[in-house]
Amino acid sequence: MHKLVLIRHGESTWNLENRFTGWTDVELTPTGVSQAMSAGKLLKAEGYEFDIAYTSVLKRAIHTLNYCLDEMDRTWLPVVKDWRLNERHYGGLQGLNKADMAKQFGDEQVLIWRRSYDTPPPALEASDPRSERSDRRYAHLQPEQVPLTECLKDTVARVMPFWNEVLAPTIQSGKRVVIAAHGNSIRAMVKYLDGISDADIVNLNIPNGIPLVYELDARLQPIKSYYLGDAEAAARAAAAVASQGKA
Amino acid sequence: MHKLVLIRHGESTWNLENRFTGWTDVELTPTGVSQAMSAGKLLKAEGYEFDIAYTSVLKRAIHTLNYCLDEMDRTWLPVVKDWRLNERHYGGLQGLNKADMAKQFGDEQVLIWRRSYDTPPPALEASDPRSERSDRRYAHLQPEQVPLTECLKDTVARVMPFWNEVLAPTIQSGKRVVIAAHGNSIRAMVKYLDGISDADIVNLNIPNGIPLVYELDARLQPIKSYYLGDAEAAARAAAAVASQGKA
Repeated sequence: MHKLVLIRHGESTWNLENRFTGWTDVELTPTGVSQAMSAGKLLKAEGYEFDIAYTSVLKRAIHTLNYCLDEMDRTWLPVVKDWRLNERHYGGLQGLNKADMAKQFGDEQVLIWRRSYDTPPPALEASDPRSERSDRRYAHLQPEQVPLTECLKDTVARVMPFWNEVLAPTIQSGKRVVIAAHGNSIRAMVKYLDGISDADIVNLNIPNGIPLVYELDARLQPIKSYYLGDAEAAARAAAAVASQGKA
Repeated sequence: MHKLVLIRHGESTWNLENRFTGWTDVELTPTGVSQAMSAGKLLKAEGYEFDIAYTSVLKRAIHTLNYCLDEMDRTWLPVVKDWRLNERHYGGLQGLNKADMAKQFGDEQVLIWRRSYDTPPPALEASDPRSERSDRRYAHLQPEQVPLTECLKDTVARVMPFWNEVLAPTIQSGKRVVIAAHGNSIRAMVKYLDGISDADIVNLNIPNGIPLVYELDARLQPIKSYYLGDAEAAARAAAAVASQGKA
């Protein structure tokens, strides 16, 4: 039996400002730091040990992982940072306020942009200063690999090769893996692991900074999954995520 | 031409308490955090860019690197942590006060333990609770690879294979490398790069948190080397390191 732990980063400055973030590299708030430290304290108290950690190339996830490992006194663990664990790219919405967009385009349109499986938000122009195509951290990729927008289906399409090529073989080799990532890159993995339909994934929300544990069999089929700590608090936090797009 | 940047970690709690540290995994002090951040600000102001970072498996070096990369907004860079960049193992002296030892054994004996090239301090017993042989971070090593004490010659003997197998090929491939490490693992590399004799290396001190730049030719021979920032401050900081072992 394998245990895999997934952690969505703590609250970021743009979570707090209710702005679409996507690939924009914003920092944790003090609350986000505290959530990350709590996740580490919880994992330590429950006796979790890891052999390797994975995260995105976005600092809100990297810092969440760092605070978490520091609390566990496991600062020394190997950490692999990979762009394929990045948040869903939010295209032309990046930087804009979710409630403002809801007032302007209606709750329904924003819910489609936020949660439709296969309708992406309007794309960024490649020349838009917000585009990451000129960001050195993606210079090793083909330009067309750096998205200008993504729906969740697109995010799944880049997360799953990373799961299949890197994460699954590592877990199956017996290594204990923790992944600090983002709402939508975690939803991509949860959708796959739990076999959630394209229609139902819209209702799944991942709370910030609460370790989500999967117990997996030898074929990496889930035996069970649960949030660590206070289950009600996790449910409330997930509901708060769901309500962010209301006007 | 290649540029290599070496940074000794910022002040640690045991630097401040004037205790022999070695492989004991102590944290940075607030001054050490500030030194690490200053190193990052300096590197950013001078326009340094890196492709990969290396550090030890000790948190004072890892955190120094993290603060430094954060200041440069390069949190996303790949970081490789390797035990071969650890500080020299201080054997039975680990945890003891340098000035107390000087009072007890004399300045000369402490200078021999601190700076003799080939005389190690008294070894730890493998059963000593201070021994790292039961530490999970070294579990992938053969027990005899985990030292019970080291002289600088021993440190050189583990740093140089890492240089030859990992660092030198990476630098020669054109990658821009920064290494956050420790007084003696850096002295090992400086000894090799500058061809310093076993006798003269005793007089070389590496200040905390000041980037040391090597400009290297295609064969990795040094063209020149210098501390970034205020040269006099670097010299004063190095002199302060030298005086730590006085009674």
